[in-house]
Amino acid sequence: MTLRVLVLHVKASTAVNRTSGRRKPIPSRFTKKSKLKLSEYLKNMASPEIEEIRNKCFQQLAPLRIAVKEYGDLVRELKTNGAPKIDVDKAVIELKARKKKLEEMEVALAPKDASFDRLKLEDLLKRRFFYDQSFSIYGGVTGLYDFGPMGCALKANMIQEWRKHFILEEGMLEVDCTSLTPEPVLKASGHVDRFADWMVKDLKNGECFRADHLIKNAAEKIIADKKSDNATKTALQDVLARLEGFDNKDMDEASTVIRKFNFKSPSTGNDLSSAIAFNLMFPTQIGPTGDFKAYLRPETAQGIFVNFKRLLEFNQGKLPFAAAQIGLGFRNEISPRQGLIRVREFTMCEIEHFVDPSDKSFAKFKKVESYPMVLFSACNQMDGQPAQTMMIGDAVKKGVVANETLGYYMARTHKYLVKMGVDPRRLRFRQHLGNEMAHYAQDCWDAEILTSYGWIECVGNADRSCYDLMQHSRATNVKLVAEKKLSEPKAVNVVEAIPNMALLGKEFKKDAKKASESFEKHQVQVTLSQLSDDQLTALEKQLETDGSYKLKIDADEFLLVPAMVSVKRSTKTAYVVKVHVEEITPSVIEPSFGIGRVMYAVLEHSFRQREGDEQRTFLALRPLVAPIKCSVLPISANERLNPIIEAVREELARYDLSYRVDDSAGSIGRRYARTDEIGIPFGVTVDFESEKLPWTVTLRHAESMEQIRLDLTEVGSVVHALVTERMEWTEARQKYPKFEVKNE
Amino acid sequence: MTLRVLVLHVKASTAVNRTSGRRKPIPSRFTKKSKLKLSEYLKNMASPEIEEIRNKCFQQLAPLRIAVKEYGDLVRELKTNGAPKIDVDKAVIELKARKKKLEEMEVALAPKDASFDRLKLEDLLKRRFFYDQSFSIYGGVTGLYDFGPMGCALKANMIQEWRKHFILEEGMLEVDCTSLTPEPVLKASGHVDRFADWMVKDLKNGECFRADHLIKNAAEKIIADKKSDNATKTALQDVLARLEGFDNKDMDEASTVIRKFNFKSPSTGNDLSSAIAFNLMFPTQIGPTGDFKAYLRPETAQGIFVNFKRLLEFNQGKLPFAAAQIGLGFRNEISPRQGLIRVREFTMCEIEHFVDPSDKSFAKFKKVESYPMVLFSACNQMDGQPAQTMMIGDAVKKGVVANETLGYYMARTHKYLVKMGVDPRRLRFRQHLGNEMAHYAQDCWDAEILTSYGWIECVGNADRSCYDLMQHSRATNVKLVAEKKLSEPKAVNVVEAIPNMALLGKEFKKDAKKASESFEKHQVQVTLSQLSDDQLTALEKQLETDGSYKLKIDADEFLLVPAMVSVKRSTKTAYVVKVHVEEITPSVIEPSFGIGRVMYAVLEHSFRQREGDEQRTFLALRPLVAPIKCSVLPISANERLNPIIEAVREELARYDLSYRVDDSAGSIGRRYARTDEIGIPFGVTVDFESEKLPWTVTLRHAESMEQIRLDLTEVGSVVHALVTERMEWTEARQKYPKFEVKNE
Repeated sequence: MTLRVLVLHVKASTAVNRTSGRRKPIPSRFTKKSKLKLSEYLKNMASPEIEEIRNKCFQQLAPLRIAVKEYGDLVRELKTNGAPKIDVDKAVIELKARKKKLEEMEVALAPKDASFDRLKLEDLLKRRFFYDQSFSIYGGVTGLYDFGPMGCALKANMIQEWRKHFILEEGMLEVDCTSLTPEPVLKASGHVDRFADWMVKDLKNGECFRADHLIKNAAEKIIADKKSDNATKTALQDVLARLEGFDNKDMDEASTVIRKFNFKSPSTGNDLSSAIAFNLMFPTQIGPTGDFKAYLRPETAQGIFVNFKRLLEFNQGKLPFAAAQIGLGFRNEISPRQGLIRVREFTMCEIEHFVDPSDKSFAKFKKVESYPMVLFSACNQMDGQPAQTMMIGDAVKKGVVANETLGYYMARTHKYLVKMGVDPRRLRFRQHLGNEMAHYAQDCWDAEILTSYGWIECVGNADRSCYDLMQHSRATNVKLVAEKKLSEPKAVNVVEAIPNMALLGKEFKKDAKKASESFEKHQVQVTLSQLSDDQLTALEKQLETDGSYKLKIDADEFLLVPAMVSVKRSTKTAYVVKVHVEEITPSVIEPSFGIGRVMYAVLEHSFRQREGDEQRTFLALRPLVAPIKCSVLPISANERLNPIIEAVREELARYDLSYRVDDSAGSIGRRYARTDEIGIPFGVTVDFESEKLPWTVTLRHAESMEQIRLDLTEVGSVVHALVTERMEWTEARQKYPKFEVKNE
Repeated sequence: MTLRVLVLHVKASTAVNRTSGRRKPIPSRFTKKSKLKLSEYLKNMASPEIEEIRNKCFQQLAPLRIAVKEYGDLVRELKTNGAPKIDVDKAVIELKARKKKLEEMEVALAPKDASFDRLKLEDLLKRRFFYDQSFSIYGGVTGLYDFGPMGCALKANMIQEWRKHFILEEGMLEVDCTSLTPEPVLKASGHVDRFADWMVKDLKNGECFRADHLIKNAAEKIIADKKSDNATKTALQDVLARLEGFDNKDMDEASTVIRKFNFKSPSTGNDLSSAIAFNLMFPTQIGPTGDFKAYLRPETAQGIFVNFKRLLEFNQGKLPFAAAQIGLGFRNEISPRQGLIRVREFTMCEIEHFVDPSDKSFAKFKKVESYPMVLFSACNQMDGQPAQTMMIGDAVKKGVVANETLGYYMARTHKYLVKMGVDPRRLRFRQHLGNEMAHYAQDCWDAEILTSYGWIECVGNADRSCYDLMQHSRATNVKLVAEKKLSEPKAVNVVEAIPNMALLGKEFKKDAKKASESFEKHQVQVTLSQLSDDQLTALEKQLETDGSYKLKIDADEFLLVPAMVSVKRSTKTAYVVKVHVEEITPSVIEPSFGIGRVMYAVLEHSFRQREGDEQRTFLALRPLVAPIKCSVLPISANERLNPIIEAVREELARYDLSYRVDDSAGSIGRRYARTDEIGIPFGVTVDFESEKLPWTVTLRHAESMEQIRLDLTEVGSVVHALVTERMEWTEARQKYPKFEVKNE
């Protein structure tokens, strides 16, 4: 069911251009999109046309599906039998390669949006300054984009709706933390050690290439070359299929491929280095001494985790609660391409929902239970099966989705994306396979949107378990826990090391700077707190007998003397207290949105060409997110119309509607086209009819080009109702007399 | 007139606490602030009380004023007579020292807000998590702050209003550019060379101190020490007075002071280095090669300048137009203190208004002409005179403010700040003295707000002339100009160097990497374009005779051969074209807001203590910016009230009003206090009266603690009207029956 098409009954429009003399039928596909209810969509999916396509595809896809399942089964079997890890990994690479071939065929077979042409969209976006490459007068920087007035407003509207949809509607706690992040924080989160991509270097001039991109391009070139022998081609085709599977562990394999096929730098032809890891965080330093290392945050999530205590307190100590952050993330991509899909600086919207790990039910889950979604489960992926439409309630009941909280956020994410203008037929939730997930994650579903770049991950929905809070707690020795009442008290043994912090500080001050002193003091404290009861007993004994104890801190050793630390216990047995509450480290469910990616998908899905005039492209943006809600166009520059124009402005301003007056020269048709290009959904035209009392104007629906005529005093409230989607265009059309346009 | 106090007629409130039994009169000063029209404020300023205070102050300030004027006159005289720069600079330092003494006395004499206690405010802000130090579980980082739910909402509301007040209302072009900025951009803007503070280093352990702070603290310590001799004390008092004048040029003087008085590191007692410049930008690098240097932007303005061409085009080539940007700025302060006033990462809102340098009139200026503002002109400052209240129209007419565009933005800035909750009596616009301005600036007025830290610059309003566009144009060889129609055509001579870029590229490619190749190629191109006609003729000749030409690029030389460059002219005389348009580099007027500083000022000006119960502090935030607009409090936990609570929620949600239900245990009085602390302006209480049909609730005005009783079905519209400031509380109080509270 990944192959879906929606056939809607399309009426030919009778709307006719005022000036150009050409008749314009309504463009086919999405005309009624705003009216499309999900239930109707599902009904349509079962239509005979769909079945026919599905049958045709079935024959071509069946063998590929079987091939995937073969390896899916093998992986399961190896895991069940406890086979060596290396064998499992190999089988997973092959599984991924087969999945990729299946998916490529699926995409190839999917009915194309005949009207979509990425170059034309990019031309429009650049020309009307939605966004463009940053610093282009200085030659430009890849992976950095500046948003112009239209892109900026679109983005601001999307963020504003996100805030309403999630933060306000769910009563989340919003925070705004800094991008600058000290190294120890990102060391604890694992980013310093593991947040890297693989690259190869030109051995002579130092130019860098992303290892997988280089292999892909070089292999494709050889395969396309008629002179290459067949054995090489086959071998390289196999490499291409496996390439996605070359992750951290397998980069040795990438180096082997580069050596084996003698790949060179594409710019200079020089030899290349082996694949080396490159950390994707931008490094900097705080303050003038040069020894306070920091990075620009790669995600906003860590800012929420380090504020957990304050947030829990703000929530009066109660679980569950969710915190959210809207802000910048930075990733120093090796060689970013693909426009807004892969950038070095981007806006993220992240939610961290903190919940008792033993109870991930969600009070409001019943509100979304019957919400239907396209789910592409790990199981389906391993079986070579397509994605399935399921109600989220069923998915949780059947255990396809791990818990209600995760399911709730997936449904809310789906709803938000569709509200923004993502075509629901090009939206799926794909579950991570076991080996795709971070080792601590319990379940993870990416909202993927189909664009001309393929299926793009735009939102991650992950159950991160209690990993992050535990890591920060370990690194700082600060308890990041919530209290849970126990039904009856419980006995606990306490043995703990009590460091003499003042003395430790003095010890470190002798030969170190202030910043590192407090850091090292802290390290000792943390390490001590992590010793087991047995280790503490050994420490105590050794301090007594030897007068010192060597504490290992990573690679270093630190000599403790008795004055520096004591071990506390009530008797020689154990210190016993009775507790009525239990401390738990909450689990975290994280929906994480890349707003730029969603925005790009919305732009692709909103892009249209007028039928019969493919040069005339436009954006059918949802009124809710459109940068400007209404245009105001006088039919002529005659000054007589000015008071009416002024009255229209006031009407629109009264309803806080953003508008743009275009009184420039140029035919009304050209001016309509100009406003359509930037996705203005409605347009008010003032003509000489308007002067008759009471003043009237025409209101044009950009997508259908239909117009109605109404009293000027009504235009504000009608446009407002249309923009807030409280009224459909068809309703407005029925209520007011249609204005027959002479050929737009 | 810098000393102003506003005496308002204050009625004692009859509102009485429901539970605590204590009577609470309305706190004095700002009770009627929301009603305060500027005209009334001015009337009040002339009241007899003010005159009395003014007279008292006059006697103490008069000699200080004379002392300032003496040096103001001297500076003017020296400048007029063309005295050596060193003499002028010395006189300016003395002038500033005297100004500082005068201002300190003025602040000391100003009537204090008796209720203000910064520690109490800070306690509230931290406890209720408006904001707090970032990464505090890791020991914290100075100059970095995280905003919690309340601070975040307050900031978001302030930004939202800024966007409405400026961008939407003025039809500005909003952009959103990257924080990451390549070095050449900031080299051109002057930041790489000049954006620095002075610091001294501990010669043994490398710890750094801001030079001026170190001198201030050390000097104050010696002055306070009884054992110090008088001569030293006097000398150091003089140093303190001059300290602000120690700018870039005068840091030698700082080093001299440190040596002369033998100042040591306050942490270790070690010797200190001389004062050295420390660039305040955070350095990083883009991409993996390590040779693409970049910084985090210190201001958002440069992003607008480098997009000038696109923006002009978006505006269909027409001047004037304004672009705006809301985003992060980063400054690596040496040792930030003063909370939100001096931070390392902050949100800025900047406007760049591009205008024909020969016509800076502003069409909408007449709308603000009669807007009164407190102006502290350079002239008044040099004469030792206080700030004056003037209508902005008069200020422009008299030449106090340079032009209408600048004046318009100053008035709009004032309006915005007051709308946010800045007390207009603690707001002034101070003009930069000649030597304070950047060398390119033509006029500059800072909006300064009086806080417990003194007068703080919160908004800069500068006429930056055409400096930035010229600099970027020079650096990139891209014309950043607008076209202006000439009344008649004009002849122009054209002699230009035409470089062979491909050949230059090859030449550089031999031994350099890709990035620097294109950079160096570009440098040659730029340098060539800047040669005069005579220099070009010399170049042409030398290429002919010697076969080569050494082109100087800063410190480097580059050997050009004839194939690399040719000189284009139509004949041996000059290439003549006729033009109908003139290219002009626009001037830029820049209002630049530090949102964090404005927010801090708003918090200080909104902070109140209940009279008679100073422990009970609260924030009287303007409803427009309050993080949460309404609280909902059931008088008891009795479940009978639940349906009414639910109905109130629906009422408020229908009007998009943010609300917070507090159904926790605790007396209603304590819960009121809790909502008052976070600045919730209105509260709905559901009590047992509410159950009678039709359902009613009480509505409480937090600032006055007064309550009224109204039908539940009205509460949404009434709160909405109050929050949008379409209705005053007094109106609501007259319209609905007062609810007599038993002792809150």
